[in-house]
Amino acid sequence: MRISELSRRSAVPTATIKYYLREGLLPPGRATAATQAEYDEGHLRRLRLVRALIGVRGLSVSATREVLGAVVEHAGERHQVLGLVLGARPVDEDAQEPEPAPGAAEVDALIGALGWEVSEHAPARAVLGETLETLRSLGAELDPAALRGYAELAERTAVLDLDQLDPDADPLEQAERALLRTVLLEPALLALRRLAQENESARRNA
Amino acid sequence: MRISELSRRSAVPTATIKYYLREGLLPPGRATAATQAEYDEGHLRRLRLVRALIGVRGLSVSATREVLGAVVEHAGERHQVLGLVLGARPVDEDAQEPEPAPGAAEVDALIGALGWEVSEHAPARAVLGETLETLRSLGAELDPAALRGYAELAERTAVLDLDQLDPDADPLEQAERALLRTVLLEPALLALRRLAQENESARRNA
Repeated sequence: MRISELSRRSAVPTATIKYYLREGLLPPGRATAATQAEYDEGHLRRLRLVRALIGVRGLSVSATREVLGAVVEHAGERHQVLGLVLGARPVDEDAQEPEPAPGAAEVDALIGALGWEVSEHAPARAVLGETLETLRSLGAELDPAALRGYAELAERTAVLDLDQLDPDADPLEQAERALLRTVLLEPALLALRRLAQENESARRNA
Repeated sequence: MRISELSRRSAVPTATIKYYLREGLLPPGRATAATQAEYDEGHLRRLRLVRALIGVRGLSVSATREVLGAVVEHAGERHQVLGLVLGARPVDEDAQEPEPAPGAAEVDALIGALGWEVSEHAPARAVLGETLETLRSLGAELDPAALRGYAELAERTAVLDLDQLDPDADPLEQAERALLRTVLLEPALLALRRLAQENESARRNA
């Protein structure tokens, strides 16, 4: 396809596609004339992933280039590709283990008790630990059974999330979908909790 | 107690407490001398709620004053107090029904199918509708069964949330706890989902 069709099918403006080509986020098309090139479905999938990494995950162009490089290196290993695209796994394999963050011991204990297989580098570990510490500092500490309950509901949410991926899809396409649904669903899941709380409160105080 | 002890027990600086007194967010203490006043447990509970409304929910001083006024009017009706403090219920009872937002029909259908009792004014309705529309516009539409699945997990999350409230606590204290745990747990719940996704992805691609 020509660049105009690539633009139409991806909803990314032609000028932006040309910028991504110059920055090496997209490989060049097959030259068909001095000023024309042909692009294929692989370009489209990669372009959609680039748009999701920049527009939804909020990565810079250079961070996106690094993630794409690592994705290409691990193409075929779906778990690694998902981890890279979602930021659960560092791009640099030799990255040092992060410094223990506040609440890290509690998070480690929870993950151990659940038997979860999670990278030491997952940024969500620190987010969880810091939240638990903040609640404690405000005297609104979560008891361990409640934390375990929330974690078990998260397990079921993750099963729903993964069930929606097409296992036969191209790995880049699968990664783009996973990124869109993971990040964009976040406000919706919190909104559902707020609505369900209101309903549950109405029920209990009827 | 003197203002210094109120400050120590609430971890709110004395100057801030004096500002809240001037702004009418706290009722005056009982004057014991020309420049001294005594405060009680009621002041402490109200001060903690003010701190949570401003510091955690991010309300302005004037919005906090309105919420407190409505809370006092509905004291004793725990469901109403929770709704006011969490923003699920408008302070102005005569507020017009909001304009239908994008995705409102889908949200109404979901809430109807689940039989949830939720105010027409709940801001979470619009957040949910907008997210569903965004996913659709990006070609990553959620199928209705999946949406229903997420909503059912939200119901169980809300049961856990409400189970942690002390039903015998003072209503202001209960409302403060509910606000802290609802808002501050949000990043932790999303972090648990990310960690659970990584584990589920590892399991499926092992």
